[in-house]
Amino acid sequence: MSYAILGTGALGGYYGACLQRSGLDVHFLLRSDCDRVRTHGLVIESPDDDFTLPQVNAYNDTAKMPQCDVVVVALKTTQNHLLPKLLPPVVKDDGVVLVLQNGLGIEAEVARIVGNNRVMGGLCFLCANKVGAGHILHLDYKEITLGEYTPNYLAGGISARMRQIAADFEGAGIPIKLAEDLLLARWKKLVWNIPYNGLSVILDATTNELMADNSACNLVEDLMREVVLGAQSQERHIADKFLVQMLDHTVKMKPYRTSMKLDYDQKRPLELEAIFGNPLQVARNAGVDLPKIATLYQQLKFLDAKNRQANF
Amino acid sequence: MSYAILGTGALGGYYGACLQRSGLDVHFLLRSDCDRVRTHGLVIESPDDDFTLPQVNAYNDTAKMPQCDVVVVALKTTQNHLLPKLLPPVVKDDGVVLVLQNGLGIEAEVARIVGNNRVMGGLCFLCANKVGAGHILHLDYKEITLGEYTPNYLAGGISARMRQIAADFEGAGIPIKLAEDLLLARWKKLVWNIPYNGLSVILDATTNELMADNSACNLVEDLMREVVLGAQSQERHIADKFLVQMLDHTVKMKPYRTSMKLDYDQKRPLELEAIFGNPLQVARNAGVDLPKIATLYQQLKFLDAKNRQANF
Repeated sequence: MSYAILGTGALGGYYGACLQRSGLDVHFLLRSDCDRVRTHGLVIESPDDDFTLPQVNAYNDTAKMPQCDVVVVALKTTQNHLLPKLLPPVVKDDGVVLVLQNGLGIEAEVARIVGNNRVMGGLCFLCANKVGAGHILHLDYKEITLGEYTPNYLAGGISARMRQIAADFEGAGIPIKLAEDLLLARWKKLVWNIPYNGLSVILDATTNELMADNSACNLVEDLMREVVLGAQSQERHIADKFLVQMLDHTVKMKPYRTSMKLDYDQKRPLELEAIFGNPLQVARNAGVDLPKIATLYQQLKFLDAKNRQANF
Repeated sequence: MSYAILGTGALGGYYGACLQRSGLDVHFLLRSDCDRVRTHGLVIESPDDDFTLPQVNAYNDTAKMPQCDVVVVALKTTQNHLLPKLLPPVVKDDGVVLVLQNGLGIEAEVARIVGNNRVMGGLCFLCANKVGAGHILHLDYKEITLGEYTPNYLAGGISARMRQIAADFEGAGIPIKLAEDLLLARWKKLVWNIPYNGLSVILDATTNELMADNSACNLVEDLMREVVLGAQSQERHIADKFLVQMLDHTVKMKPYRTSMKLDYDQKRPLELEAIFGNPLQVARNAGVDLPKIATLYQQLKFLDAKNRQANF
């Protein structure tokens, strides 16, 4: 199968490079880094094994790209207003768009552009930074959980194309899990993303600083419980045991700046709608208030606006 | 009447100096500034009129002070663990302790030390900084609202001694309001103090920055509404009109760093229990949750601990 990677940052660059190295036909969309990558290729540093791809297919416009079987959306969600222009030229008629973004509700937006039967979601557990044009530093983790999108996020089960894509990624050294219920998987990821991404920015703190303080730790847990209530409002059930696992796991992780904190420190826009605004909205539509998450969202919107003003 | 001023910072120093200048017998408790003030007195700069008191009664121990008719508590609430030692030697048998501190529940603590009939509360609307030992810069406002403490904070009405103390302060140029219900006055002050003190620290923002941003403004209003719910849980009713006035007033104020933000920036402990912890606790005891205020409290406890660690 052929792959288009829309957005060649840390995430798109890392996964795309792994896929190309395994022998697949991969095409990369870039903006400012396009010339550099077209000339010098991609460099991956990783605890697994460093490698260079001296030659890659680099584009600055999806209209110039071949139509592909799998179109991976690896942009920040803050760029998603571009998708109605970017996606149509590059998806094969029987192709699929694979959304590898954080947060809730993105697949539904993509389905409005390419049709309900051509969308899948993927949840990445990846710790990687772009350290220069075409130069990606992979730090830790790389697993992806895949799930089918269906209208209204009814559980989609395990499809043949999920298995096909999983085989490609696994052939490229990326462990894959298959989720029967994409929406449940998305809410479960929010159990971690909402407290740690939010508080790391608001309190200027790493995950281990938060876990070492009683008040912050209690707040993390309160926020997780609100995420569980949000999931419940969509008839998705997350067991208490899962929260305990997430807390334990975070205590044992090495000190870690979250992706939202990295964005904030580099004065990039924060992915607030996907991670905070959309979950709050769907819960509210179901009559459920999540006041502590709402507080973080209001605080983050203020900080994001101020942070980017300071940029200019 | 004779006055003891416990704590000669910006607030105690300013009001005490005004009282002494008007001819009253005033005695100041100080710690690190004691020698300096004993030798050089107090200097007040104010838009009203600058003045110097070359000689003041300065003490570093309440045991050395004369017993006074009115003992003004002008310490930070974070020093209140010292009150059981400080108060008994300095209050006349028929004297009164006037608590000029922010927050909820302090008068009840003082009553446990000196008895139920010897406590009053005062709410200060004062903008002043201590700029050096015995040197106070008065910036704006100075009004005090006085109220009688009664067990369980039943409305105490207007007493003769309230009028007496009011006359002394007014003779010293300090406008006084008399409150029939101290607890209602305290909750009304929290309507301002909780959102602006809390968010100014958490979001590193002045009042005008908060009011200029939609999300922050909405959060301020949500927090004010939770304060109203807290007051309601104590059978105190605050009208919507009052919230609108507070918001309007703050928009029109000059850009202002709150007292909690000043404390934070100077790495002093924050008055979190008086302003956040106690109101949350009494509301919770009445079965009322205030989740947005609770979020701020948890965040502030984390920031306060981190801030003071960084100090050592």
